[in-house]
Amino acid sequence: MDKQYRSVSESSVYAELRRDAASLPHVSQLISKDRIQGYHVCAPHLSYSYSGARVTDAVLDLFQDATDELDLIGQYQRILAGEKMNFTENRSVQHHRTRSQTDAGWYGEELDRIAAFSKEVRLRYKRILHIGIGGSDLGPRAVYEALRRYASATTDVLPIYFVSNLDPDDLLSVMSTMSFTDTLVILASKSGTTLETTMNWKLLVELAQHQGISVSDLEKSTVVVTSKGGVLDDHNRYLNIFYIDDAIGGRYSLTSAIGGVVLSCAFGDDIFKRFLVGAAHMDDHALNSKLSANAPLLNAWIGVWERQFLGLTAKAVVPYVHALSLVVSHLQQLDCESNGKSVNRYGDKINWPTGPVVWGGVGSISQHSFFQWLHQGVNDSAIQLIGSRASQLPYLPSHTALNCNLAAQFTAFVCGDSHPDNQQKQCDGNRSTTLVMLETLSPESCGALISFYENTIMFQGFIWNINSFDQEAVQLGKQLAAQLDTTSPQTNPILSAIYDMINPSNSLI
Amino acid sequence: MDKQYRSVSESSVYAELRRDAASLPHVSQLISKDRIQGYHVCAPHLSYSYSGARVTDAVLDLFQDATDELDLIGQYQRILAGEKMNFTENRSVQHHRTRSQTDAGWYGEELDRIAAFSKEVRLRYKRILHIGIGGSDLGPRAVYEALRRYASATTDVLPIYFVSNLDPDDLLSVMSTMSFTDTLVILASKSGTTLETTMNWKLLVELAQHQGISVSDLEKSTVVVTSKGGVLDDHNRYLNIFYIDDAIGGRYSLTSAIGGVVLSCAFGDDIFKRFLVGAAHMDDHALNSKLSANAPLLNAWIGVWERQFLGLTAKAVVPYVHALSLVVSHLQQLDCESNGKSVNRYGDKINWPTGPVVWGGVGSISQHSFFQWLHQGVNDSAIQLIGSRASQLPYLPSHTALNCNLAAQFTAFVCGDSHPDNQQKQCDGNRSTTLVMLETLSPESCGALISFYENTIMFQGFIWNINSFDQEAVQLGKQLAAQLDTTSPQTNPILSAIYDMINPSNSLI
Repeated sequence: MDKQYRSVSESSVYAELRRDAASLPHVSQLISKDRIQGYHVCAPHLSYSYSGARVTDAVLDLFQDATDELDLIGQYQRILAGEKMNFTENRSVQHHRTRSQTDAGWYGEELDRIAAFSKEVRLRYKRILHIGIGGSDLGPRAVYEALRRYASATTDVLPIYFVSNLDPDDLLSVMSTMSFTDTLVILASKSGTTLETTMNWKLLVELAQHQGISVSDLEKSTVVVTSKGGVLDDHNRYLNIFYIDDAIGGRYSLTSAIGGVVLSCAFGDDIFKRFLVGAAHMDDHALNSKLSANAPLLNAWIGVWERQFLGLTAKAVVPYVHALSLVVSHLQQLDCESNGKSVNRYGDKINWPTGPVVWGGVGSISQHSFFQWLHQGVNDSAIQLIGSRASQLPYLPSHTALNCNLAAQFTAFVCGDSHPDNQQKQCDGNRSTTLVMLETLSPESCGALISFYENTIMFQGFIWNINSFDQEAVQLGKQLAAQLDTTSPQTNPILSAIYDMINPSNSLI
Repeated sequence: MDKQYRSVSESSVYAELRRDAASLPHVSQLISKDRIQGYHVCAPHLSYSYSGARVTDAVLDLFQDATDELDLIGQYQRILAGEKMNFTENRSVQHHRTRSQTDAGWYGEELDRIAAFSKEVRLRYKRILHIGIGGSDLGPRAVYEALRRYASATTDVLPIYFVSNLDPDDLLSVMSTMSFTDTLVILASKSGTTLETTMNWKLLVELAQHQGISVSDLEKSTVVVTSKGGVLDDHNRYLNIFYIDDAIGGRYSLTSAIGGVVLSCAFGDDIFKRFLVGAAHMDDHALNSKLSANAPLLNAWIGVWERQFLGLTAKAVVPYVHALSLVVSHLQQLDCESNGKSVNRYGDKINWPTGPVVWGGVGSISQHSFFQWLHQGVNDSAIQLIGSRASQLPYLPSHTALNCNLAAQFTAFVCGDSHPDNQQKQCDGNRSTTLVMLETLSPESCGALISFYENTIMFQGFIWNINSFDQEAVQLGKQLAAQLDTTSPQTNPILSAIYDMINPSNSLI
């Protein structure tokens, strides 16, 4: 393979970046009113502020140099052009095309089918039971929570009940609160063979039969989202089938049929299409080769800087928007599964750090939880706050109070507070802090936010020269679990001993 | 102040621990069937397995030496005896007494009052609206989720709707699904002045008035849990008042009236009392001065070892029990707020790391999310898995499959998988992995689990010589937010500039 790409560690600016990181002043010495206004990009439907990040003009100039040297925008363009940029799986990376507003390619037709189907569903059904896991669950769940209130102002929202866990408690708890009547089931599995989804479907069939509903009746209220030609692709059995392209990774499938079917059925296809428009706007914005005018690219560089050059191993993401609570879990998957890698795109072991621990929680709740750690603990985590300038609700004093708290915490993270006489109250500040502000929470800004993160992670993959589009490590656990199947010879003695210990029939406890 | 306590960094075993950490073999070379059986403690209602942790017999011996030298059990006994071990606030630490089964002290009477009250409530009301935040929210929420199904098998469960966020969307979303009729409101605030709880109460009053319900009628359906003599302590206004002692930190208040009132009302007082019994059993177990027979003490040492000596900055906690999903958030608060500190108990700046980033999520869902990072990312996080040997549900194949996955992932984290010809599939293993197994999920095991973590964190505070019972950093954000009140002169120019930027009336975006 022609090893045409390199990482920032192999670029001409690496040594200088290291030097700059070693001599960085406290960010409270850098921040000023001018910097707050200057270190700020307006992107579609949101803005990105990095005045609280531990970067300087000199560092940003080096980011620009490396952007050009590593051809980051060119690599993104090659993804958009359909080149096989998922090297290890020898596939193209198609998720941008699912929302492209100019490309009437393969997705336009599927989107029309989804729209027509959702219109029918919204007349016939009262609620949705969604069975999927990972990429077929966390994204749709986060966006459902994000837009539920927004949508309900103008349309009837079909409530979605999400089930994903292998623990049968998940499905049983959900089914204890609802009936099969008037319920549309969505079975979302790219491969069609995902263990959790298969087991939950089997359990659902049992529950239905217990209530006198046959498998075939259940299937006739079930729509499947899967790969073309997979085991679930059977139009005779199910109410309908929609397809996800193999070249779209599960965690990047929110704007494909995986997000499209369930969100169109719940909110109507108009809202889902507006969500796509917002994502497409941000995809276009991300093509800007000028760093200071490209929010996801800036966020990518600042994240790499924090992780690799400042040694911050974690990134706390805190939305000060209650409806965005579940975005943290979606982002955790998106980032950790994409950039939790130790080899480069050519399969060579690398010696630089990659994606951080992505953690967090919603504000203001988190102020009463782990914020103590952020302020006075060891400084191991960068911080990204997300807010909304306007409330999606009618004017309420608590939204103002919420944004006062957001501004106050930003200031506290950056500037800290000095108590020479009482070290117990000392907050060192200098926490590298960035801020994403939505105009207001809407389908467009929500789509823009998702694309902002997807493109951030893509750029970071380019900068580290890793493949953000595969996930090889998920196989090992599956293979080991399969060895515990009673029909397999157990080959791994450690696995057997561990399983013996946790087996209920064992008396070790 | 007599500086009688020291940290492990100042102990006689420190240098040897450092040497051992530097020469540690890969844990796959240590693990064996014997080690799996030997590195295992049976504690009340759960067991603790540390065969996958990166420790050796020699290291464990040093932990035992330091346990004695630092007088860890003696310090715990002094807490139980009511000494003022919360140094900075000059208070005793009373949460163990809330569940003591031998001490008929101040809490017995309050518990009787709670039991009598809950019996009445369960006849009169159909659901509970719980308003609180942080310690007055995350713990009760986690235990409600944990025991909801268990309780519903034998009794009527009053559903609890928890509201905590300053974002008005939280309360408004909840209230859009329910009516005031037959709803008991619980207002939980230790100080009685918590911003979020006060604002949510005000909004609730407005919503009630909008429906023709007067403030005084609302107050007569409202029970308050607060400090004696605080602003909310007014028996004439509210249906009832219960008290939390000042010497119980919010995050440790789950076994006090904060957990007691809401959980007794939801499940009945019997289940809450059994929860206390489980916690008390674990408190007693934690008095054992022999390390190998003390699960929370072992967990504390292994956590310190991973954080300070192996340099793992994060700890991922993954319960393979769907009902324990919210335990991760509770634990995040408990640990990060307690041990996210940079000064010792005497206010001196320290030069060793303290509590890790506590993150995680529920299994098997997390396998499809951040597990890729754990297996193939940079090795920055220790891992703690939680499981349940028996299912709380009737036998179901998916519970067996769940535990097979738990055993498989444990094995994969420890042993990894070698692919010399395909580095892309290489999993290095050597992830320091521990396992907590409940007998089954029950009130007792749930109480034992909470006490297990509270005592782990307490011992870690002793080992690092920090005060795990204060939270000074929460003040700074409050003070800054108060400066943005229109009646205050704005003194901090950075704060003003940040607030101007996010203010909806500003046109920067």
